[in-house]
Amino acid sequence: MRHFAGGEVAPELLSKLLNAAHQAPSVGLMQPWRFVRITCPTRRQAIANLVGEERQRTAVALGERSAEFLRLKVEGIEDCAELLVAALMDGREGHLFGRRTLPEMDLASLACAIQNLWLAARAEGLGMGWVSLFDPLALAALLGMPEGAKPVAILCLGPVHEFYPAPMLALEGWTTPRLLHELVFENGWEVT
Amino acid sequence: MRHFAGGEVAPELLSKLLNAAHQAPSVGLMQPWRFVRITCPTRRQAIANLVGEERQRTAVALGERSAEFLRLKVEGIEDCAELLVAALMDGREGHLFGRRTLPEMDLASLACAIQNLWLAARAEGLGMGWVSLFDPLALAALLGMPEGAKPVAILCLGPVHEFYPAPMLALEGWTTPRLLHELVFENGWEVT
Repeated sequence: MRHFAGGEVAPELLSKLLNAAHQAPSVGLMQPWRFVRITCPTRRQAIANLVGEERQRTAVALGERSAEFLRLKVEGIEDCAELLVAALMDGREGHLFGRRTLPEMDLASLACAIQNLWLAARAEGLGMGWVSLFDPLALAALLGMPEGAKPVAILCLGPVHEFYPAPMLALEGWTTPRLLHELVFENGWEVT
Repeated sequence: MRHFAGGEVAPELLSKLLNAAHQAPSVGLMQPWRFVRITCPTRRQAIANLVGEERQRTAVALGERSAEFLRLKVEGIEDCAELLVAALMDGREGHLFGRRTLPEMDLASLACAIQNLWLAARAEGLGMGWVSLFDPLALAALLGMPEGAKPVAILCLGPVHEFYPAPMLALEGWTTPRLLHELVFENGWEVT
């Protein structure tokens, strides 16, 4: 997660970034994405608290790697310029195109939109982090989401002090990235 | 789905596109993506058959929109230059970082990788289509995937005759795209 430098994102730039997200392809053109921009400091703090709680629960669940996990910077909610929550819309069960056997394609579409936003942000010199350390039911309740809608990302966005030269979790030794050629097979699965 | 013009994708270019995919962010840096490049014509035909079957099943499930659906071009498996199957790796249950409450973040990461591939392909003048009309268990069996791995995309990639001026499903009247401002809320859900 980037070290955010506070500051702000100009409204026209934020609009441009969200437009990039909105250009994403989606299964059956269902455009399942919804974005909630958090401008209220009290609400931002409530989201930070939810993430803080899940961070502790994840640490417990990680067992022997708990202390190592707790040393990592896993969110920038309180210091990012813009905070967005990305959610899947309600009423998705009515969309069958491309989803009869793979209903999770709605999430895939939303992730494509978020990746567009991410690349556009980076192209504009901004950092972004996708936080998934939260209880989706609690966040949905906090933001008044209807039955069937589901938050899947807390997006921290804004100017950063610097960009990491490599993924933070690699730099910190959390894991070692795999090489591409190990993950590309021909005609069938290969054991690597 | 693009109308593919056959042809081929140079190996160095395909490698470059897969590298773009591999640069995607992933939850806990788990890099859950695996790509199976289909070069065997028999295997390609078997995949086309699987998709043909699911296309018919989806048509039935769509009821009154069945005929309308069957008129759409929903895949380019037999005429695209390169055919790739993107899958989630096996052994994902061992990755808890960012997934304790949202295990589907592995799919979100894979979708980010696919969107990178998509944008890189388009930047190189190639078209791509993401086909999700298939039974994942049948495709996993066809490609010899281990227990726990799951195919989520058949990617048709290559030169196209032309790019659509707007999403095909909008041009064909399947659905009307929503405007961005309808999908962005402030501090909480809004009914639009």
